[in-house]
Amino acid sequence: MGGLVTLTTDFGLRDAYAAALEAAILRSRRAIRVVHVSHQVPPGEIDAGAYLLEYATRSFPAGTVHLAVVDPGVGSDRRMLAVRAGDFFVVGPDNGLLKRAFRGHTLEAVMLAPDPLSQSHTFESRDVMAPAAARLAAGAELRGLGEAVVLNPEPEAPQLTVGQALRTVVVHVDNFGTLVLDLRCSNGCKAGELLRLEGREVRLGAAFSDVGPGELVAYRGSIGYLEVAVRDGSAAEKLELGAGAEVEVAPL
Amino acid sequence: MGGLVTLTTDFGLRDAYAAALEAAILRSRRAIRVVHVSHQVPPGEIDAGAYLLEYATRSFPAGTVHLAVVDPGVGSDRRMLAVRAGDFFVVGPDNGLLKRAFRGHTLEAVMLAPDPLSQSHTFESRDVMAPAAARLAAGAELRGLGEAVVLNPEPEAPQLTVGQALRTVVVHVDNFGTLVLDLRCSNGCKAGELLRLEGREVRLGAAFSDVGPGELVAYRGSIGYLEVAVRDGSAAEKLELGAGAEVEVAPL
Amino acid sequence: MGGLVTLTTDFGLRDAYAAALEAAILRSRRAIRVVHVSHQVPPGEIDAGAYLLEYATRSFPAGTVHLAVVDPGVGSDRRMLAVRAGDFFVVGPDNGLLKRAFRGHTLEAVMLAPDPLSQSHTFESRDVMAPAAARLAAGAELRGLGEAVVLNPEPEAPQLTVGQALRTVVVHVDNFGTLVLDLRCSNGCKAGELLRLEGREVRLGAAFSDVGPGELVAYRGSIGYLEVAVRDGSAAEKLELGAGAEVEVAPL
Repeated sequence: MGGLVTLTTDFGLRDAYAAALEAAILRSRRAIRVVHVSHQVPPGEIDAGAYLLEYATRSFPAGTVHLAVVDPGVGSDRRMLAVRAGDFFVVGPDNGLLKRAFRGHTLEAVMLAPDPLSQSHTFESRDVMAPAAARLAAGAELRGLGEAVVLNPEPEAPQLTVGQALRTVVVHVDNFGTLVLDLRCSNGCKAGELLRLEGREVRLGAAFSDVGPGELVAYRGSIGYLEVAVRDGSAAEKLELGAGAEVEVAPL
Repeated sequence: MGGLVTLTTDFGLRDAYAAALEAAILRSRRAIRVVHVSHQVPPGEIDAGAYLLEYATRSFPAGTVHLAVVDPGVGSDRRMLAVRAGDFFVVGPDNGLLKRAFRGHTLEAVMLAPDPLSQSHTFESRDVMAPAAARLAAGAELRGLGEAVVLNPEPEAPQLTVGQALRTVVVHVDNFGTLVLDLRCSNGCKAGELLRLEGREVRLGAAFSDVGPGELVAYRGSIGYLEVAVRDGSAAEKLELGAGAEVEVAPL
Repeated sequence: MGGLVTLTTDFGLRDAYAAALEAAILRSRRAIRVVHVSHQVPPGEIDAGAYLLEYATRSFPAGTVHLAVVDPGVGSDRRMLAVRAGDFFVVGPDNGLLKRAFRGHTLEAVMLAPDPLSQSHTFESRDVMAPAAARLAAGAELRGLGEAVVLNPEPEAPQLTVGQALRTVVVHVDNFGTLVLDLRCSNGCKAGELLRLEGREVRLGAAFSDVGPGELVAYRGSIGYLEVAVRDGSAAEKLELGAGAEVEVAPL
């Protein structure tokens, strides 16, 4: 079995850049399986990429290597990192893109050196990061890939807790207009209870069918964050909220 | 050799949801090959998804498992099905999405049970259907996956027959503006003959080059339905027809 | 290890056509790895496809088979080719799509025969070209696939040379608004030197960070052509240039 690398980038799907990453990986280790998570991060939008990368890290099995590239500082002296975070690996630029993936995990990190032979440094994800990801996926030791660096741990997002109002942000709006909030949802997230969100009452449910068509429902989303949706509609449109918006959530 | 699962959904390509399906499959059985058919079904449009799923079932070899997810009723009491249809398998919600794939095939079906441990039921394709698809692809018995249910057989679409006018619908408009009609095209589909379509005469051809640039041509399409195209142009634009439109076809 | 086939087409990502190509390949040889380079070539735009195909051929290892389909003449008497170009293979229609991939390589070519059993000839990439690509990837002899044909060699693009003004074209505008020029960039492409491009002075750099935000920079791009970018912006917008535009480049 040949190891597993996922790719999350802002390369888009029109160019051949995502395939060039896959090529760089299979040039290193032919048997590695590559899964394309998303290449539709808006160009340069680090926060958008950070959520999709986190989603990937919460979806794939232990040992997976997640390569993430939203890298407007490519070729500058921003660091390139390879990191063990709990039981998976992340490779990408040190510009904030990786931080959500680090949350709650013990971190061990190295800095990847730029390729000294390269005449240009405009595609370091292909030339430096992808080969490093391939080596990790094939079982190489992290410490052999570069100089050790110390990263600050990243705490988990706050929990939704009964009776406690919190300000948080909309992390992501998905293809269905569903809002993902930066609020973990576990014990305080019982179906049937009520939230106040931006002045509206929203019922916590376990499924969209817990409310009528066109109505708001909140629930524990697919990677554990509180999500707000409209059955057969778009919560982003109904609430006029987008990614980055601040919201207040009060469990009643 | 590890089995084959195809994915057809309305998840879009911006989110990490399609990758999460692939992750759920490879968590179950690491060696399964996953082919992404389309994630660009417009959100909730069951008829659009049904055609793409049918296209997949007519393209892949015997034994392939086709997982389809256009599931606005996710988490409700709509059933989740795993079905043997002839020599392939289909897994998806029982909301009409699977019906075109069933056409003309002997059916054997089971109902998949929701995950009783799940706190939310908003991603049952990942939590219930994908693992079932993976088990089927790995050779598991269909009857072991859930309670048997009886499905009505689905007849094939009507055939284009010389001298017989038929009303039918536009099933799909493809990337090139070509119209796919819900009419099987075999013996009655001889190159050189004429059709009347919405009051226009259209020549049956074997290739676009059988007509001049900008002209209409009809032919047996790539999965056996009658298609209408404009050479170097868009039939959808020229005829002002879209998916779902009713048309009358009269072989002359 | 099962061979490698890449796919570059104008099929788009909404239809099931790209998956049908993959299906045709794995029907021929189940173990072949398929990499999707791009299906977002604008329909029928041969020049756009030619650049992405060339990009693929410069990215993947020796022995890779590159299947390219931008084929408005499908089914006509335009030839279908399978070609060894240096150490890789290209399969596609003989309409100019393959020419950039041939540049600078020794060519050996055969003509693929149309499928005589096929009732229609509207999807020859699936029915004829994909099986041929699969056979090549599995190690078949090129000469066994069809009748030998002689192709003219394609010279490399001109080189950027100090002190010599050249007229060239914008080959491609990528997802970041970067312009790719049809000008090879090797010895004459030293960081720090100046170009005049459309009346503006542009500094040659090794990375975007060699200039300030919003400023133009030129560099040796990721497959060796001269590229012009704007740091944290779009060169296509700033220079009001698109694919196909003619430009004059003068190294100062």
